[in-house]
Amino acid sequence: MEEEEGGGGEEEGEVCDTVTQIVLVWFTGHPRFMNQLSCGTEVVSIAGEWLTAAANTNMFTYEIAPVFILMEHVTMKHMRKIIGYKAGDSILAPGGSVSNLYAALAARHKMFPEYKKKGLLALPGELCMFTSLHSHYSMMGAAAAMGLGTDNLIEVPVDEKGRMIPSELDRLIQEAKAKGKIPFLVCATAGTTVMGAFDPLHAVADVCEKYKLWFHVDNQRHKMDGVERSQSITWNPHKLMGVLLQCSTVHFQEDGLLISCNQMCADYLFQQDKPYDVNYDTGDKVIQCGRHNDIFKLWLLWRSKGDEGFEKHMDHLFEMTSYMIQRMKQHPDKYELLNDEPECTNVCFWYVPHRLRSMKAGPDRHKLLGDVQPILKGRMMTAGTLMIGYQPLDHHPNFFRNIISSQAVRREDIDFMLEELDRLGYDL
Amino acid sequence: MEEEEGGGGEEEGEVCDTVTQIVLVWFTGHPRFMNQLSCGTEVVSIAGEWLTAAANTNMFTYEIAPVFILMEHVTMKHMRKIIGYKAGDSILAPGGSVSNLYAALAARHKMFPEYKKKGLLALPGELCMFTSLHSHYSMMGAAAAMGLGTDNLIEVPVDEKGRMIPSELDRLIQEAKAKGKIPFLVCATAGTTVMGAFDPLHAVADVCEKYKLWFHVDNQRHKMDGVERSQSITWNPHKLMGVLLQCSTVHFQEDGLLISCNQMCADYLFQQDKPYDVNYDTGDKVIQCGRHNDIFKLWLLWRSKGDEGFEKHMDHLFEMTSYMIQRMKQHPDKYELLNDEPECTNVCFWYVPHRLRSMKAGPDRHKLLGDVQPILKGRMMTAGTLMIGYQPLDHHPNFFRNIISSQAVRREDIDFMLEELDRLGYDL
Repeated sequence: MEEEEGGGGEEEGEVCDTVTQIVLVWFTGHPRFMNQLSCGTEVVSIAGEWLTAAANTNMFTYEIAPVFILMEHVTMKHMRKIIGYKAGDSILAPGGSVSNLYAALAARHKMFPEYKKKGLLALPGELCMFTSLHSHYSMMGAAAAMGLGTDNLIEVPVDEKGRMIPSELDRLIQEAKAKGKIPFLVCATAGTTVMGAFDPLHAVADVCEKYKLWFHVDNQRHKMDGVERSQSITWNPHKLMGVLLQCSTVHFQEDGLLISCNQMCADYLFQQDKPYDVNYDTGDKVIQCGRHNDIFKLWLLWRSKGDEGFEKHMDHLFEMTSYMIQRMKQHPDKYELLNDEPECTNVCFWYVPHRLRSMKAGPDRHKLLGDVQPILKGRMMTAGTLMIGYQPLDHHPNFFRNIISSQAVRREDIDFMLEELDRLGYDL
Repeated sequence: MEEEEGGGGEEEGEVCDTVTQIVLVWFTGHPRFMNQLSCGTEVVSIAGEWLTAAANTNMFTYEIAPVFILMEHVTMKHMRKIIGYKAGDSILAPGGSVSNLYAALAARHKMFPEYKKKGLLALPGELCMFTSLHSHYSMMGAAAAMGLGTDNLIEVPVDEKGRMIPSELDRLIQEAKAKGKIPFLVCATAGTTVMGAFDPLHAVADVCEKYKLWFHVDNQRHKMDGVERSQSITWNPHKLMGVLLQCSTVHFQEDGLLISCNQMCADYLFQQDKPYDVNYDTGDKVIQCGRHNDIFKLWLLWRSKGDEGFEKHMDHLFEMTSYMIQRMKQHPDKYELLNDEPECTNVCFWYVPHRLRSMKAGPDRHKLLGDVQPILKGRMMTAGTLMIGYQPLDHHPNFFRNIISSQAVRREDIDFMLEELDRLGYDL
C-alpha cells in the first residue's frame, strides 16, 4: 500500500515535473522564465492576437485592413512623439533584426540613392558601418545580407560597463576613411543584449554630426536622452513592453525615405488609381510583401494600459531587478555579479558552487566557474523549474544573464530563483 | 408607421452594410473575399495560432521551444519529401519575400562564400539574377537590398500565357556574360502573381544546368513536375493551403548552406556547450534573431487534414475556379476573360458595362474598359459586398484578378459575385 502510494506519488511528481517543464519552456509567461527579453503573457495582448488571427488580414494595403492601418498610423505617430521626432515615418517589422536592416537600407539609400538601381559596384568605394563590440549580432547579419560584408561592420570598443567609447568611434571612422572606405552609419545600442548597457547617445550623436553619418539607435527602452538626435530608431514592444512576439517597430526622422528606398511599385497591389488615398498603403515601404498584423495587439494593450500603465510596468521591472541585485549582494559568496549597477533589467552573475567559495581568485577558479554554469543550466532544464540564459563575453567565462521582462515576476519568484540555484548547483 | 418601418429598415440596412463591409475587409474568411491568396479562416489553424499566442515563445533555440522546433523538423522534412528533395534543409520565414531573399542569399553564398566577409566589392564582377517579367516583385526587392541593384535583376520575357520563355532566358544569360556580368541565380515562378502562370520548370532547369546557375522556384502550389531539380524553393502555406498569415517556408536541396550563409555565432544564444544537441537551434540559419512561431498552426492543420485533406482542399479551389470560368463563358458580353484556361486559381477578366457591350473592339473600347474597373472596385468597397483586386499588366489596361484561395467559397458565392458585378457595374 505504501509502495503503491509512493509509486503513485512519484508518478504524479513526474507528471508535475513534466508539466512544470512544459509550462516553463512552452509558456514564457511563467514568472520563472528569465531567459529572454521577449516573454510574458499580457492577457490584453493575447486577446489582440486572437482577434488578429480570426481576421487573418494582411497589412500591405488599406483596402483589406483599413482599421488596422489606421491603428498603425496613430500608434506609430504616438511613438515618434515619445522618441522626440517632429515628423517622420515608421513601420512594423518581423523582429528587431529586420527593423535594424530597414534602418541600414534607408541610411544607404539616403547617402547613395543610385545604389538601389545600380548596386554597390557603382559606388565610389566600400561602404562601412559602425556599432559597438557588444551590440546585437543583427547588424552583422545586415552587413552580410546587404553585400557590404561583415568586414565592413566595424566594431567599436566598449568600456568596462559595456558602453561604446566615443573617442574610439571617432578614431575608427578616421582610420576607415584613411583606407578609402565610406562610413555611412553608426548604430548605438540603448540596452545591449548581454549586459544591458547604454551607449552614450549624445556623444555618439556628436561624432555622427561631425562626420555627417546616419545615427541609428537600437533600443530596448522607450525613452533615452539623446535619442531624438538619431535619424532612425528600432524599438521593440515585444521586449520590455510585454507585447507578444512579434512586434517590432522602426522609426525614421525623415518622412518619405522608407518608401523611396524600398518601393518597387507592383501594379497589382499599389495601383495609383484606387478609390481611396493610396498614401495609406504601407506595403511598398518594406522588402516584405505580405505583412502580418502586429499592430492590433500593441494598440489594444496601449489602450488598456495607457502611457502611465507602461511606466508602471517598467518601474516594476526595474524594481524587481533592484531587488534581485540587493538579494544577491547579501550572499556574495554564492552569487558573483559582473556589474552590480546594471542600467537595464539584465543581471549578469556567476553562481558559485560550494567548493569554489573558498578557492583563491585567479585563472583556475575563473575557468572552473565558467565550466560550472552550463552544467547548472542543464540541471535547471531537467528540473524544469527555471529558465535563465548564459554566455561568455569578452574575457569573461560563461555567466548567467537574468532578464526580468515579464510583468508576472514577483519578489517570491526572485527568492525562489536564488534558493533554486543553490539547491541545484551547491554540489557542482 | 410605414415610414418608421421604412426608416428602421434603412437603418438596419446601413448597419448590416457596415457589418458586411467590416466582415469583408477585416475578415478574409468571408467567402466573397477574393482579393488575395492569403486569406480564409481554417478554424484548426486559428486554434493553433491561439495556443501559439498563449505560449508566446521564440523559435530561435531548442531550449525555449523544444516541441515547436521538433514540429518544424518533422513538417519541413515532410515538405521536402513532397518536393522531391532527398536531403536538405528548410526554414520558416516571415513571408514569401523573405523566403525568396533567403534563397538568393544562399545562392550567392554558394557561388562566392567569401562575399559574406568581404562584400560585393571583393567579387570579380557584377552579380546578376534572372526572373520572369511576370514574377513577384520580391525578387526586385531582394536585388536592391542585397546590394546588386535592380538593374542586375534581369527580367525574362513571357509568352502570351505569362510563362517564362526559356530560349529568351538563354539569350539573356549569354548577353549578361558578354557584358562581363556574373549570373548566379534563376528564379522560376510556379503560379505567377497576376495570371497564375507556371514557368516551364524542366526547360528552365536545363538552362540552369547548362550555365551552372542556382535554380530557385517561387511556388504557389505544393507540387510541380520539375521542382525537384531546383536548388531551392519557396512554398507558402499561408496561400493556397489556407494557413493563417504568416506561414512561409523555404527549402534547400543542400543541407548546411543556410547556416553557413547566415550564421553570426552569437555567443549568448548559440553556445556550443549547451546541455543538448545544438543542431536543433535554428536561430543562426536566418538574418532574423527572434522568430515567430509559425509552425504550430501549420503542423496542427496538417495533422487535422492529412495530405489527402490538402489534396481535397486544392481540388475544391480548382473546381470553384472552373465553375467560375464556365459561368463567365455563358455571358461573354458581360465578362471578358484574359485567359480562359488559367493554370492556377487566378481568373483575370474585365467586367463589361452595358454601354460597352455593343461597342466595336479597338483602342477606344480598350481604354474605356480599363477606366471602368477601378470605379467598379470603388463601388464594391462602398457596398461592402465583394473584394476583388485589379491591376494593369503589360499592354492590358486594368482588369480584375479574382483569386479563389479560401475553402469557404461555394458555387452560390460565385453566382452572387457575377450578379453583384452586374448590379454594381451595369450602368458604368
